[in-house]
Amino acid sequence: MKVYPSIASADPLRIAEELDKIRGHPRVHVDIEDGNFLPNITFGQKTVRKLMQNPDFVYDLHLLTTRPYEFLQQISDCHFSHICFHFEASAYPLREINLIRKMGAKPGIALNFKTGIRELTPFLSQIEYLLIMTAEPDGEEEKFQSSMLEKMKEAREYLPQNVEIWADGGINEGNIYQLKEAGADAMIMGRAVWNCDNPLESIRRFEKI
Amino acid sequence: MKVYPSIASADPLRIAEELDKIRGHPRVHVDIEDGNFLPNITFGQKTVRKLMQNPDFVYDLHLLTTRPYEFLQQISDCHFSHICFHFEASAYPLREINLIRKMGAKPGIALNFKTGIRELTPFLSQIEYLLIMTAEPDGEEEKFQSSMLEKMKEAREYLPQNVEIWADGGINEGNIYQLKEAGADAMIMGRAVWNCDNPLESIRRFEKI
Amino acid sequence: MKVYPSIASADPLRIAEELDKIRGHPRVHVDIEDGNFLPNITFGQKTVRKLMQNPDFVYDLHLLTTRPYEFLQQISDCHFSHICFHFEASAYPLREINLIRKMGAKPGIALNFKTGIRELTPFLSQIEYLLIMTAEPDGEEEKFQSSMLEKMKEAREYLPQNVEIWADGGINEGNIYQLKEAGADAMIMGRAVWNCDNPLESIRRFEKI
Amino acid sequence: MKVYPSIASADPLRIAEELDKIRGHPRVHVDIEDGNFLPNITFGQKTVRKLMQNPDFVYDLHLLTTRPYEFLQQISDCHFSHICFHFEASAYPLREINLIRKMGAKPGIALNFKTGIRELTPFLSQIEYLLIMTAEPDGEEEKFQSSMLEKMKEAREYLPQNVEIWADGGINEGNIYQLKEAGADAMIMGRAVWNCDNPLESIRRFEKI
Amino acid sequence: MKVYPSIASADPLRIAEELDKIRGHPRVHVDIEDGNFLPNITFGQKTVRKLMQNPDFVYDLHLLTTRPYEFLQQISDCHFSHICFHFEASAYPLREINLIRKMGAKPGIALNFKTGIRELTPFLSQIEYLLIMTAEPDGEEEKFQSSMLEKMKEAREYLPQNVEIWADGGINEGNIYQLKEAGADAMIMGRAVWNCDNPLESIRRFEKI
Amino acid sequence: MKVYPSIASADPLRIAEELDKIRGHPRVHVDIEDGNFLPNITFGQKTVRKLMQNPDFVYDLHLLTTRPYEFLQQISDCHFSHICFHFEASAYPLREINLIRKMGAKPGIALNFKTGIRELTPFLSQIEYLLIMTAEPDGEEEKFQSSMLEKMKEAREYLPQNVEIWADGGINEGNIYQLKEAGADAMIMGRAVWNCDNPLESIRRFEKI
Repeated sequence: MKVYPSIASADPLRIAEELDKIRGHPRVHVDIEDGNFLPNITFGQKTVRKLMQNPDFVYDLHLLTTRPYEFLQQISDCHFSHICFHFEASAYPLREINLIRKMGAKPGIALNFKTGIRELTPFLSQIEYLLIMTAEPDGEEEKFQSSMLEKMKEAREYLPQNVEIWADGGINEGNIYQLKEAGADAMIMGRAVWNCDNPLESIRRFEKI
Repeated sequence: MKVYPSIASADPLRIAEELDKIRGHPRVHVDIEDGNFLPNITFGQKTVRKLMQNPDFVYDLHLLTTRPYEFLQQISDCHFSHICFHFEASAYPLREINLIRKMGAKPGIALNFKTGIRELTPFLSQIEYLLIMTAEPDGEEEKFQSSMLEKMKEAREYLPQNVEIWADGGINEGNIYQLKEAGADAMIMGRAVWNCDNPLESIRRFEKI
Repeated sequence: MKVYPSIASADPLRIAEELDKIRGHPRVHVDIEDGNFLPNITFGQKTVRKLMQNPDFVYDLHLLTTRPYEFLQQISDCHFSHICFHFEASAYPLREINLIRKMGAKPGIALNFKTGIRELTPFLSQIEYLLIMTAEPDGEEEKFQSSMLEKMKEAREYLPQNVEIWADGGINEGNIYQLKEAGADAMIMGRAVWNCDNPLESIRRFEKI
Repeated sequence: MKVYPSIASADPLRIAEELDKIRGHPRVHVDIEDGNFLPNITFGQKTVRKLMQNPDFVYDLHLLTTRPYEFLQQISDCHFSHICFHFEASAYPLREINLIRKMGAKPGIALNFKTGIRELTPFLSQIEYLLIMTAEPDGEEEKFQSSMLEKMKEAREYLPQNVEIWADGGINEGNIYQLKEAGADAMIMGRAVWNCDNPLESIRRFEKI
Repeated sequence: MKVYPSIASADPLRIAEELDKIRGHPRVHVDIEDGNFLPNITFGQKTVRKLMQNPDFVYDLHLLTTRPYEFLQQISDCHFSHICFHFEASAYPLREINLIRKMGAKPGIALNFKTGIRELTPFLSQIEYLLIMTAEPDGEEEKFQSSMLEKMKEAREYLPQNVEIWADGGINEGNIYQLKEAGADAMIMGRAVWNCDNPLESIRRFEKI
Repeated sequence: MKVYPSIASADPLRIAEELDKIRGHPRVHVDIEDGNFLPNITFGQKTVRKLMQNPDFVYDLHLLTTRPYEFLQQISDCHFSHICFHFEASAYPLREINLIRKMGAKPGIALNFKTGIRELTPFLSQIEYLLIMTAEPDGEEEKFQSSMLEKMKEAREYLPQNVEIWADGGINEGNIYQLKEAGADAMIMGRAVWNCDNPLESIRRFEKI
């Protein structure tokens, strides 16, 4: 079980320091939220470019933006291992998928609660992973929704074996095992990592659950 | 002449450290850009809340977002000395102005290049400052546009004396004097501050020009 | 079988009088249509607030608006027994659902013809009823579409037992029985009620079919 | 000085009764608000059609909607003496103006606070009146803004003599005289009329100020 | 197997001449693309009206536009044998379907890759054909996607027998047979027709495969 | 006085032939209309690329589209002498202006009736011409509006001498002289050219008026 810590949940005034706390863990998840696709804003192009200068990590990108194609065009020289965008924000997902491959990254698709697995069918042979949101804006604390475990199981049965499933949202020690059982290959973890005294150790503990 | 350093131009991975470099200067300018009102994204709600915890500075907020009223509702408990929003993004500016006053801040209006001074007439008695963009997205380096000096002069003649004029965009040592002459009361400075060896000293030097 | 008369189909110049005609029937259905989510406009905030002052009825609210969350924020002090919003108009339905519960009402989701039952899966444990449109804007008379009976049957099989199914649109004496057989727990009735000589008696007759 | 009572400010549950209270006054102003062009919703097509059946009054229509052309197409068989739409909502105002003339009504243009008089220049020979909002959504009580008196004076100087100026928003006994002095030919009055014991007498008193 | 050559793939400067090359073939497919529903623009109202003057062909219309209802209203006097619009662009498909019937044409629905077959259920009794896109904007050459063969098979099983299936996008000699096997009743062919020396003969050869 | 015939007004099925009729006249005006910025659609990328292959003419491009920047990106390898876009469609006109210069063309700005001259002030030093619409969508015949002559005079006084003024819309033999007097440097002519027996001769005659 892989854990990808989400830097958007770290202290936004001390991102470099926060990254230092997980040095040794190879991967970092980067959430771009634009305040239009969803109510929250995280950070954008400049933060991405600065992260690229830190060679200690491999980064994956998760675009929660209204116009993923245009955002990708602006950072098309940046190197990510994986990039996913929201299905809800793209009328023609092949445009984003092809651009992501040109950028040298593995393409994935992210799904809000509202969107079902079946709609993805035409794109399954073109993507490497599916990111399933397990918490989303709710006007409150954005807690983990256990109803998403069913969606994950359905996805695991329906997707080709080589397409990984990633879970993202409200994940903590208490639900990792359920997610693993439901078929998750990787978990994006935010507050559960950065609110610990020792984030690196926590990630390792989470990965062993 | 007042200079307000824009934290959005500092190193986004080390905002706390960057602020330390200007400790002693009382004011910081906070730009929220959402990638929809304009192409770039800076940072959002979480960064704002963290900044509030640093009592060394007084902050002013500049919203470059598509829905300023909704953004303000989300951070209505945060204390800023001044808040401005873009005229182009609001159908009914009194809504934002009244909410800003309720938040205990002084309201201002910001103008893109396209928008003229005259449209502001009905709101002049309700605002404390006008922020005039002096550089904007241009697909290149967003350089200072000297044609904005005319707009500033026109504004100075047209506005009531108590309404301050702030200039924002591409400002550096080379154009401060012109802006002062054109009637600017304050200048937002970004790269010119943070790219210096000693940002605090630079601010002080800029303020004396 | 419950019948909820829709006040939007009554004489819009004499709503109070029309309500008098059904005094004794406990429930009234309130449709807010905004001319943007669909072509028609019914009424809005002021009508809602006036209805609240009439204690003879319990009201349920059906929002056919582009921004249900914002509309709810504006009338969050009003008491409804049930509130539903259109799934098509909400990117993050948990926001509306949670706000509706805070308002003391039971949350429901409404579906246009285009939207399938399966998309609701993650929200089924959070709602109390599903409102299925059985007529919708068609550029003509908005007649009842019998193809919706299949959707209702599918819904009845798929939904948890505690989630009620409401039918809304073009319902009259001629299709009530079919709807009941298809699994409807309640029916919103408009023209069929208000165009009768004795609306109250009609409702009672419809309920007994 | 003419006063046109706005039926949208009357009791929305008893519009027919409210109209009875002003029988003898020839004119009624009808505001369609759609909750998208501005936050509030009043009423729509069905109310308009029912009003047409009451021959005691001549009606003028004020569209505060996002797509005035489409709304007009839907009620193109209804007879109004005057129809105005918001300049901010129309990309090509000649389309609405021509359709209004085809409907047998006199066309006007309405302006929010943000919009200046000068933009109207190409349309001045085509319209019969200009409606200037004197209150607008402000998140509070939508009070009369005296800064609009200046706009009215500017309009009176700038417009051809045959183009009337109408004022709308927050008008009451206390500001009628100022408006008259500023050049208003007619006033839309809402709460000030309907909250009186004798609306008809109030209108007559207002008209004599 | 029927082949409908798409005039949008012909030489746009010589459409009349291109049509001459297929004289004898009864049918021509007309794609209206608006650069907003998808990135490309083909042609519009004026081209449609000119085509109508050429009595050598029967035309079917495929609207790839953001507002199909409004486009249809503008050309409602033109005679097409069939008209389809994109499901993704219509909130209330019965409006378009009813207007198409009033225009004397057979209505169909077109589906982008993202949209599943099941969403169509309520409309199946109202349409005569389903157009399934087999290539779509991808930022590259818009090649035929063989994953669409599965969608076509699913459609064939799911749709009533009288509803035809049309395939559109990237079709050439190499995939006709597969499409036929998958259940296509007709194929829209563009470049494969017009890039041949003898388009008429090619169409005939394709139809015999 | 220069006349630029607009190819969008020629027979859309015989554009190549129509161009032959004006061989000898060096310039052709190309209108891209997208059915979203305004109701009509003309033609798009493919037509542009084909025109580029005809070396008999120099082309200027007039974008009447919702997203001029994106359209330009798609044809950035095409060579035009001049390119203008609509001010109303661009939030940051410097982006388009800079891209047009990179494409080797002279940049201009086009104005609908609604938009005033003054708003252009910050861009006057960056553009080579201003295209003023003299007819626009009106739901009827889009006739020439003589009120635009005033706008043209105002523009001529206000603009730097090196910025040309072009007039576009409903221009014919009867208004050329007025336009010339009002300050127009060039006229886009459509129907008046192509509906003549001898378009080339007509252009020459118009140029001599």
